Amino acid sequence: MPNATNIREKLDQFSEQWQPKRIARLNDYDVRIAKIEGEFVWHAHEDTDEMFMVVKGEMKILLRDGEVSLREGEIYVVPRGVEHKPVAEAECHILMVEPSETVNTGDKGGDRTADVHDL
Amino acid sequence: MPNATNIREKLDQFSEQWQPKRIARLNDYDVRIAKIEGEFVWHAHEDTDEMFMVVKGEMKILLRDGEVSLREGEIYVVPRGVEHKPVAEAECHILMVEPSETVNTGDKGGDRTADVHDL
Repeated sequence: MPNATNIREKLDQFSEQWQPKRIARLNDYDVRIAKIEGEFVWHAHEDTDEMFMVVKGEMKILLRDGEVSLREGEIYVVPRGVEHKPVAEAECHILMVEPSETVNTGDKGGDRTADVHDL
Repeated sequence: MPNATNIREKLDQFSEQWQPKRIARLNDYDVRIAKIEGEFVWHAHEDTDEMFMVVKGEMKILLRDGEVSLREGEIYVVPRGVEHKPVAEAECHILMVEPSETVNTGDKGGDRTADVHDL
């Protein structure tokens, strides 16, 4: 019998930050969750939009011409090709929806690049 | 300056049930919200999976061989081609992610079919 996936219970299963976990697939898209704190790297995804939803806490998505603040229960879709930098002053728990081939650091690469594992 | 979208504030902006509203686009996918209560029609989406997330309340997704119960903060992806029937004993608020061309009644059609409007 199939079961629903409880987002918060999944978030309780790991502590590492900036390491997205796949909790579901939707066609060729992933539903991913992550814990973030501090500053990520500036990057863009040239081929795709990227949806962020805050599950707990607060974050900002810095853009070259401004910023978007997200609180719990809020979503924002970063358009494809737009440089952005996720930041969180305190630990924030997020859910993302994006194509399965999407790399967390986009065009930037580098040592913040993380493989996505199923949870 | 772009703004985040608050899911619950969007849900406060309408009262009609079984009428999905688009609150964001993600490539060729929609992020939709809806209020549901009672029983929907059995249907399938032959060409796509469909992601459900409960924002408030409880719902069940009946399948021909069982059912999935979802509470607040839980998600379930109905696989493409799988017949399903959403039901909610009391009003339930949900978020869905699915391709923009997805019709709420899938292969079934009929008078429960609803256009999707931006909110």
